[in-house]
Order: sequence, then C-alpha cells, then structure tokens
Amino acid sequence: LDFRSDNTVGVLPEIMAALAAANVGTDASYGEDAVSAGLEARASELFERKVRVFPVATGSAANALALSALTPPWGMVYCHRLAHADVDEANGPEFFSGGAKLRPLDGADGRIAAADLDAALAHAPFGVVHHPQPSAVTITQITELGTAYRPAEIAGIAEVARRHGLRLHMDGARFANAVAFLGCRPAEMTWRAGVDVLSLGATKGGAMAAEAIVLFDDRLATELAFRRKRAGQLFSKMRFVAAQIDAFLTDDLWLRAARHANARAAELGRGLAQVPGLEPFAPVEGNMVFARLSEAVLKGLEADGFRFFAGEAGRPDVVRFVCSFATKPQDVARLIQAARRHAPGQ
Amino acid sequence: LDFRSDNTVGVLPEIMAALAAANVGTDASYGEDAVSAGLEARASELFERKVRVFPVATGSAANALALSALTPPWGMVYCHRLAHADVDEANGPEFFSGGAKLRPLDGADGRIAAADLDAALAHAPFGVVHHPQPSAVTITQITELGTAYRPAEIAGIAEVARRHGLRLHMDGARFANAVAFLGCRPAEMTWRAGVDVLSLGATKGGAMAAEAIVLFDDRLATELAFRRKRAGQLFSKMRFVAAQIDAFLTDDLWLRAARHANARAAELGRGLAQVPGLEPFAPVEGNMVFARLSEAVLKGLEADGFRFFAGEAGRPDVVRFVCSFATKPQDVARLIQAARRHAPGQ
Amino acid sequence: LDFRSDNTVGVLPEIMAALAAANVGTDASYGEDAVSAGLEARASELFERKVRVFPVATGSAANALALSALTPPWGMVYCHRLAHADVDEANGPEFFSGGAKLRPLDGADGRIAAADLDAALAHAPFGVVHHPQPSAVTITQITELGTAYRPAEIAGIAEVARRHGLRLHMDGARFANAVAFLGCRPAEMTWRAGVDVLSLGATKGGAMAAEAIVLFDDRLATELAFRRKRAGQLFSKMRFVAAQIDAFLTDDLWLRAARHANARAAELGRGLAQVPGLEPFAPVEGNMVFARLSEAVLKGLEADGFRFFAGEAGRPDVVRFVCSFATKPQDVARLIQAARRHAPGQ
Amino acid sequence: LDFRSDNTVGVLPEIMAALAAANVGTDASYGEDAVSAGLEARASELFERKVRVFPVATGSAANALALSALTPPWGMVYCHRLAHADVDEANGPEFFSGGAKLRPLDGADGRIAAADLDAALAHAPFGVVHHPQPSAVTITQITELGTAYRPAEIAGIAEVARRHGLRLHMDGARFANAVAFLGCRPAEMTWRAGVDVLSLGATKGGAMAAEAIVLFDDRLATELAFRRKRAGQLFSKMRFVAAQIDAFLTDDLWLRAARHANARAAELGRGLAQVPGLEPFAPVEGNMVFARLSEAVLKGLEADGFRFFAGEAGRPDVVRFVCSFATKPQDVARLIQAARRHAPGQ
Repeated sequence: LDFRSDNTVGVLPEIMAALAAANVGTDASYGEDAVSAGLEARASELFERKVRVFPVATGSAANALALSALTPPWGMVYCHRLAHADVDEANGPEFFSGGAKLRPLDGADGRIAAADLDAALAHAPFGVVHHPQPSAVTITQITELGTAYRPAEIAGIAEVARRHGLRLHMDGARFANAVAFLGCRPAEMTWRAGVDVLSLGATKGGAMAAEAIVLFDDRLATELAFRRKRAGQLFSKMRFVAAQIDAFLTDDLWLRAARHANARAAELGRGLAQVPGLEPFAPVEGNMVFARLSEAVLKGLEADGFRFFAGEAGRPDVVRFVCSFATKPQDVARLIQAARRHAPGQ
Repeated sequence: LDFRSDNTVGVLPEIMAALAAANVGTDASYGEDAVSAGLEARASELFERKVRVFPVATGSAANALALSALTPPWGMVYCHRLAHADVDEANGPEFFSGGAKLRPLDGADGRIAAADLDAALAHAPFGVVHHPQPSAVTITQITELGTAYRPAEIAGIAEVARRHGLRLHMDGARFANAVAFLGCRPAEMTWRAGVDVLSLGATKGGAMAAEAIVLFDDRLATELAFRRKRAGQLFSKMRFVAAQIDAFLTDDLWLRAARHANARAAELGRGLAQVPGLEPFAPVEGNMVFARLSEAVLKGLEADGFRFFAGEAGRPDVVRFVCSFATKPQDVARLIQAARRHAPGQ
Repeated sequence: LDFRSDNTVGVLPEIMAALAAANVGTDASYGEDAVSAGLEARASELFERKVRVFPVATGSAANALALSALTPPWGMVYCHRLAHADVDEANGPEFFSGGAKLRPLDGADGRIAAADLDAALAHAPFGVVHHPQPSAVTITQITELGTAYRPAEIAGIAEVARRHGLRLHMDGARFANAVAFLGCRPAEMTWRAGVDVLSLGATKGGAMAAEAIVLFDDRLATELAFRRKRAGQLFSKMRFVAAQIDAFLTDDLWLRAARHANARAAELGRGLAQVPGLEPFAPVEGNMVFARLSEAVLKGLEADGFRFFAGEAGRPDVVRFVCSFATKPQDVARLIQAARRHAPGQ
Repeated sequence: LDFRSDNTVGVLPEIMAALAAANVGTDASYGEDAVSAGLEARASELFERKVRVFPVATGSAANALALSALTPPWGMVYCHRLAHADVDEANGPEFFSGGAKLRPLDGADGRIAAADLDAALAHAPFGVVHHPQPSAVTITQITELGTAYRPAEIAGIAEVARRHGLRLHMDGARFANAVAFLGCRPAEMTWRAGVDVLSLGATKGGAMAAEAIVLFDDRLATELAFRRKRAGQLFSKMRFVAAQIDAFLTDDLWLRAARHANARAAELGRGLAQVPGLEPFAPVEGNMVFARLSEAVLKGLEADGFRFFAGEAGRPDVVRFVCSFATKPQDVARLIQAARRHAPGQ
C-alpha cells in the first residue's frame, strides 16, 4: 500500500475522459485552442473575477515562473524553511528569476506567521544598493507539513507584504485540499486575502501533468507569456493540458477528489493518534499525516510493505503518509491496524 | 481542412491506450517508475547501443536543455538561419545556456552545408578570450523547409564540428519523418554519423506532449538530470510522459505514422507541382510541402476554408502545408483540386 | 611605434593629477563621495540637461549594463555586424541581460542605416510569444570602422526605433573622437537625437579605467544601480573612478585629447592615401585609419617594428592604425614614409 | 575622524608611485602587458608555488567570479550568516553563478566551525536531483567580525569540504590583516590548508581598485578567463590594475600596511575595553574592533564627529571601528578618550 505521495497515483477517470474528448479533430496549437479559451472563463467564474490562466506542466515550473514575475534578479523572496521552492527545486526559482534569493523563515507547523515576516522586514535594507531587496513572499497551501493557512492568516501576511512593497505568491500544489478542509471560497483564500499569483495544482489532485498559473494582477500577463514560452512550457498541443485543468475544475471534481483524500487522512490521523508511542507531528488539515514513529513501528510498517517517506522535516523519526483520491478506507484501516500491532506493549 | 501543422492534430489511439494502461495502480514518481526504466531499454535497442533518455514535455525544452549541456555560456552555437532554436523560442536556448549565442548560417533548402560550417570555423577566434567560442552545432531533421539531411551530410557536418572541437546536436522534432523518408536506421543518422545529443520528437508524430532527449555521450547525464529538474521538466507522474514515447517507439508506430504523413505530403507535393503557376519551394522529403502560390490561389484556398501558414521563410508568397498521421488521402486530393480550380487560366 | 589601439597608451597627466588630488583624506565609499556627486553635475552641464551618471571601469561593463536595462531577456538588440557588443565581449551582453539576443545588421562603413533597421523591423513579429522581441538598438560612435554617425543619422535611427517601440543605446567608447570630428554639441548627438543611454568612454581617450553610463531616462536609474552593484562594478573607492571622468570632462580635456588623436589620424589617412597600391578601407572620421595593404607593405611595416592589427573586418589585408592623445606627428610621418618605402615600384 | 571602513581612506604612496611608473610608453592591453606577466611570478613566489592570478577591480567581482568557477548553477555554497557574499552583494554570486544558492551557517565570532559544516553536510542530499547540491564553501579572512581563522581551522573546514566533494574559497578582502595578525605564511593559510581559490584583497589594504583572484587549481584558469571577460572585468589598460597589486606585494608593503592597521585596532580594542559599560563584541584579530556601546557613548561619539557604523551583526548597539594604513595613534587615542568621557559615571 502506497502512502508515499499523491503523485504516485494515477489520473482521475473524469480527466482521462476529458483527454479523450479533446482528442477529436484539429485545433490551433500553443494555447490558441477552444479548450484553453474556455479554461480562462471557467477559472474566472471559480474565482469570482476575471483571472488570467497560464497552464504549465509541473508545479516546479508554475512556482518558478510565478516567482520570476514577482521579483527582480536582485530581489529576496521570503518562504518557509521547509518550502518546496527552496528545498526541492534544484535552484529552479533562482534559475527562472535570473538569480533572486530565497530567504527561509521559521514558523510553526510549516506556516509563516505574519508577525515573523514583519519582524524580518522591519529592519530590511530597502533601497540600499548593496543588499538583496525584499520583493516577494511565497506561501504553500496546504503547507509542506500538511497544515492549512486560514484566510485571515493569509490576509495578515499579505498586509505585511503590501505594506513593505512585496508581492504575494501562493504555491497551491494542494490548493484543493485546503479549500476542502477550510470550506471557504477560492476567492477568499486568494485575491480577496491579497494573493497576487497562485500556482493552482491539479496533478497531485488527480490530473496527469497540469498546473495553472493564475494571475490576479493581469499586468503580469504579457511578461509571463514570454517567460513561459522561453522556459519551454508553452505546449504545442496545449488543449490537452488545458483539458485536464478544465475537467478538474468542472462539477467540483477538484473538491470532491480533495474531500475524499482529506477524509482518508483525517481517519488516518485519528487512528494513528491512538497508537501508543506514536506522536502526531502536525495537525492534519488536508491529505497528509505527519507523525513521529518509534523505530519499531517504522520498521514494522516497512516490513509489512507499506510505503511512505521517513526523515521528513529533517528528522529521521518523522514520517509522512499522503492520501489521494484513490486511497481507500480499508487501506487506511490496514495501516492503522499494522501500526497498532507494531507499537510497543502490544 | 487543417494543414497548419502536425501539432494541430490530436493523439494516436495507440498512445491514448498506453496512457490508459499506465493509469493503473501506483508507481514511483519523478521518473523512478517502471515505464521510464523500460523506455531507456527500448531506446537503446532502437539505437543499437546504450543510450540515456530524458523525457521532457516540449521540443522547446528538449532543444534548449540539450544545447545547454553542449555549450558554455560564452559559447557560440551554429544553426541554420531558419532554425527553430534561433527564430521560434523567444530566446529559450540563451536562457537555458546562461547566455550562449546562436549564430545563423545560410544554406540551401534549410540545410547547413559542411563546407559552409568549415568556412565559418576556419578563422574563428578559438581560445581568444574576447570572442564567443564556437562550441556546438545544431541541425534540424527534417529541416524547417521539410528537407532531410542524408547520413553522409550529417557525418560531414560532424567531422567539421569534431575537428574544431564542437559538439553536434540534432533537433529531431520530426526525426521520424526523416527516418521514414530515407529508409535508414536511426543509428546511422545519429551517433554513427557523429551526433552527440538528439532531441527525439514524439508530439508532432502523434503523442500528446512528449519529447526525449537522447544522449549518445553518457558523461552528460548527471548534469542534464539537474538541468532538467531545475527547469521544471522533471514530471512527478513521469510514467505518463514516458508511456507516450514508449508506445510511440513500440511496433514501429512512430515509423508507421511518419510513413503515412510522408505519403500524404508526397501526394500533395506531386499534385501541387502540376498546378499552373504554383512553384515548389523546397523538395518534399518528409511530411511538409513548401510552395510559392500566386495570390489568387492563396486567397482562394483560404476562402475555401483550407488552413495553412503563409509567409514562410520570410517570404509572403511561400506557404507551408503539413501532413500528419491523421491526414487523409481525400483531404490531400481536395486541396489539390481546389488549388487547380483557383489557378489562373483554369 | 605602437598603432595597435588607443588602449595600449597610458594616462593623461591631468588625470594622474586628479587621482593624486582625490587621494587626500577620507570620503564615503561606494559613490557617496564628493567627487562622484560633482561628476553628475558636471555631466549634466555638458549635456545641457539633468543626467544620471554611473561610473564603471570597463566599456564591456558599461555596454552590457546599459543594454540589460533596455531589453527584457526575451528581447532582441539590433547592432552592426561589426559591433563590439556582439563580436568582442564573450557574450557579456547576453550574460548581463539574462539571455537577450543580439541581431547583427549589415551597413556600409560600420554604420547601421535607418532604412535597413526599418526594413528589419517592418515584418518583425511584435507581440508573438514564440519570437525574440525587438527591444533595443545599439550603435557605436565612432564606429568599429572609424566612421562617425552624423546627428541626423542618429535621429533617423532613433525615429525608427521609437516608432517600433525600441530603445536606443550608444556605445561611445570613442564618443570624444566623434564630437571632435563633427564639431557638434554632445546633446545634439545623444538625447536630442533620441539616444536613451550612452556609454561615455574615457579610458581610450586617456583615462586609466573609467567609463560612464549616462542615462537620459532617469526612470532607469534605480534598476541600473542594483544591476551595477550585483555585477561587481560598484567600486568601494569610487571617487578614484569618478575623478578620472571628472578630470576628463574638465576644461575640455576630453575634446583636446580627441582633437589631437583625430588630427594624427587625419594626417595618417592623407599620407597613406598617397602610397601606391594602398587603398583606404573606410573614411577617417576619428582617430582610426583603416586601409587595405599589399602584403609587401604589411610585412615591411611589421619588419620595421611598427605595431598594428591586421585582419580587421574579417579580411586579412585590412589593417587598422589607431592614434591616441600620445601619438606624435613624427610617429605618423615615419609610418607614412615607411609605407611608401615598402610600396611596390618604389 | 573616520573609522567607517578601510575603504574610505585613499591610496598608499607606494601604489601611487607604481601607477606613475606604469604610465610610461605603451604596452599590450587586456593583461598581455609586462606588469601583468610579472605579477603572476611575484604571487607564485609569495605563495611558494605556481599560482594563476586574475586581477579584477572589486571584491564583489573577485568573490562572485571565484564562486562561479566552483559551483554549478544547481549548487549550494555554504557561508557564514554574516558573509559579505550573501548579505552585501545584491545577489552578485547568484548572478555570476547562474543561480546557485548561498546557505548561511551560524558560527561564533563570524567563523564557520568545521564541525557545524560537517553536520550540515552529513545529511545533505548528494546526488538527489530535486535538491540543491552542496558544491562549495566560502570563508572570509579576516571575518566580518574582525576575527581570524587559524590555519588549523581552515584545514579542518577544508577537510570536511573535500571529504564531501566541496571546493573551498577564501574571501580575502582583508587577507593581509590575517597574515599580519597570525604571523603565518600565506601558503599556510591557503593552499596548504586546502583553499582552492583565494580572493586576495588589495583595495582595503591601500590600493585604489584592485583585487586578485588567485587560483591554486590551474584547471580553472581557462574557464575563469572567459568568465572574467564576459563579466566586464578584463581591463584594457590592465597594467594599471596589475601594478597596484604588484606594488602591494612588493617589499612586504601589504604586510607593513596591515601591521600598522592591526596595531591601531589592537590599541583601540584595549582602550575601549577599559571604558565602563562598553563591551567587546568579538576578539580583535585584525584591523576591526566590534563593541557594544551604551546609547550615551554611541550618541556622544557621533556628536563629537567620530564616524563609524552602528547596527552591525543585526544589533543596533553593536558598532564597528575600522583602522587602516592611514589611521594614526593619536586618532585612536582621541577616540578612546572620547568614549571614556561619554561613559556613564564619568
């Protein structure tokens, strides 16, 4: 049973169907097609305002492109210490931005606190030519520890950012899980809270390879179009990327899939919390469960064939279990039972 | 009827089936999956030697990544004056390479001649620190004018390149069409002729979004792996990219599709050559037909609803018709008939 | 006798004196000193309007920084086929700009013609995301062939550039020689003609290592300040760079030195024109003489110990003689006599 | 009285004399001159082995160029939290390296400890394509807090670096002060300890604008030559940069100047340590004194016209006093007296 990531699973049937449906006849290439056109309308409806949408194929590209449009090369982008953009991209953001710097901040449960950002910016050397210039903030929703920023937290960060002249980006690789968990409107968590650009993830939620850069500031659109092209992310048969995102956003598929995954994670979190000696590492607010396991349990689960990642957050005893649209209740139950079985004193 | 490009068409049914087949169970992400592993074996068989394969999602990325591994930032990459890498990538190769320069060469029918390359290199300022350093050559197969380099021509270019210390890249967005036209072995046209890196196209041949960087020099593999990652081209659900290429290369699908497209282009070329006042612009050696049309024919075809690009090769009267795996004989016949009908004196 | 370049000679005594004068007491570093402050005022007076001045230490840096402020990374910068920026900078402009492309144009006597630029831009794919975007023009004054653009020619180029949305940069490594030759006002040849940014050379004119980026559009100043810093061109003891330029511009030193050099070149040009078999290659409009020499004369001069560069403009028989503030009339006379002596039939 | 920095002071008379001496006749440009040739010999003698020397004009450029030769763009360079390269260069190292990442480490008194580096590297994800790859370490000698690494400490860091496959760079903007303080041989502190590349500072020690990149690994020389050129740091009249460094290294001028500055700092450190309420912030091991001042003393000294920087190391009460070759014993005495006068209870 595979709890490694929501990207080890396949593709939602609705999205496979959308790909088949898009595979009829010919249409203009490079995003000039009908599906791509419709996607922008659909996203605008979802976000309750006109947005510009740039589909790309990986979250790496979505984040790096988005950040490159929000910072000059001499800029500094604040992020959480665990942020994927800093830790897991082989310097992709530095590459796309022409050399901007990421500056990690600490923060409980994977979240940046507005006050900490404010403190970091309070004495920042704005306008002094020697120093990297604070230019943007990127937050991950849900975070690398599976927690969700509340809209008020995001608004707080955005207020600090705006006050100091910084732009705000949201890495929404698991945006759906956050919306599903919080039950809020997408607008509330993004532009109404002050987000300038969103990387809206679909791949982890059940698409094949599709992410959307959503611009709430359309002055960035021309620049981003050229940036995307020269980065090799303007697909010739773009309709097949757009079709994935379009299907994902249709009839609440994205939310239904996320609710399923979240429900499994919630069950898993509750179940594991009962296991003696096992300690939750972060609140379960999406589709990921972080816990500290004794070595006996960890090794036992691995021996049973359960697959998951250990060594999370830089600590060898912290493991991550990720649920997806495909995780079954019985899979979760089996994992909990096994953990119980391996727990000391059982 | 759409003759704009082989990227306005959809996806081969065999490739759709491969995507469906890959959509079973879970597998490791980021290229650690079974399909990706199998692809390298399959490609090695095809090329009759061990090769390393890096799937990416666009030809833009394949070419820019490949070139960035073959040139230092102070290098100069020779290409044909019409090369996609120079003309159609919004400076993607410059971006990926950290600022290398492309140097366009003239050449009949879209091809670089070895002698012209040699002449350009004869007095090149090798080792002089002021000057961009000749570092690589990139050729397009089939070329931007639809012609195919013969293996001997490639070997000639490679000999010149090697003698001067340059590496050789082949942009094979339509590699299949060249192999189908020439009836040669893939090895003959690539590493046996002296090609170091190949961008092996699948998208235009019938995939959804899949290209493979094929390394014949495996010392580049580690560097390329990091370059691909930081460029946002390492897909989490890589198996779906690999599956497209794998299916494309299975049971000669790539060749069968290319032969079909080439056959249509050949019919079209022969038919148009009979149209009074219409003049072929380049030999038809793949799936593209370039011709000079009188304005009457050009406007007439457009009015009939035929779709194609005019203004090719910088000349307003040069049009391009592209055939694909999906082009039907009757589509071609209708286009020829219409051209005849609009020709002066008919 | 050394006619290789105006950079093989030393430093004007007035500039050495200025360095000594600056070497008193302490002053703020990184351009916050009194000399730097005064330089901006002096340059503003010279150009008859407020300008911003950024001293740097090489022409390579001045040009690359200036261009990087005038083009996005996906831009295309037009230049003459012989432009130093394209040919002699080991891809410096590509590096500083993050990957913009230089596009060489032909043009008689080292000059771009406005009409040729207009023709190149007439069908340029503005706004089409696939293609490098024309963004700037750079002209060299005096040119790489020693000729000078007239103010009306510059205005013509600027008009074309502005009409198409491009910015105009002047590489003025030998700006002084052009002003001295044309007898015009610096303003006339720059911002009044439509130049946005000037690289104002002092090194070749007699400074030690000092060039000034002069901005006629002060909206670029903030960006340029950060670009200069991160490029390692913000000097800690900046007053010594500023002092060189300040002295150069004081009491017409720059013009007097240039007039001297130009006078020597004019004498040399006239004298060589009389030598049988020797053919002028470009009009002498500054401090450089280009001529085609028979092999006998070329080898004879070398054997006599005269130093100069052959193989200019890509032709082995074209040589360049450069005069400087230090070239003496008798040096020129000796060169002419020697050339006569080696000429066939003498 | 100016204690702001050793770059607010002017130029040593011996170096002014060397500039005058170099200003005779003509010589080849771009480093092909006799002075530049001699410099490499002199440095080789100084370092007791063959070294390659690349003069540049700023420490920013020296460090950024050196690091760019030691790390790939996907690399991670470890440095101290206060390192100039990370904090004071407006992302210059990121620019020159094409996007490598700097990773700050904590460490007492401005120094990285080998054990802390080892701990950071122990679990580093070497070879894993997602993660920035540890590639180099840069240490500052003397450090940003005025302390000096002992040769054994450097060797310890180098051992850790080498064991993990990292290269070692030394930012020696104040290298002379370290050698003077420790009384060791330059070789001992550099290549014998395991340093691969040294930025050898001369400007702060008394030159006008001159730093030398010293390569102990000559395989980097070709690459560095092109990197320097395209970065606009290859000076046409290079002999004037080389002459500064050459004079600096002649007859122990560099050491004599550093000993003078160090002696003043030692006096100042001892004197201030006696001032009630004033607390040393770091040991004085070169020409800089860091101390925590009460607000009364800080304001008092400012009111007296003493110039220095407060807010060092991110703390408002930490001030820095820098001595130079030009600082006089009576200047130091006056500062100490003034501090006493302003101290509470006096």
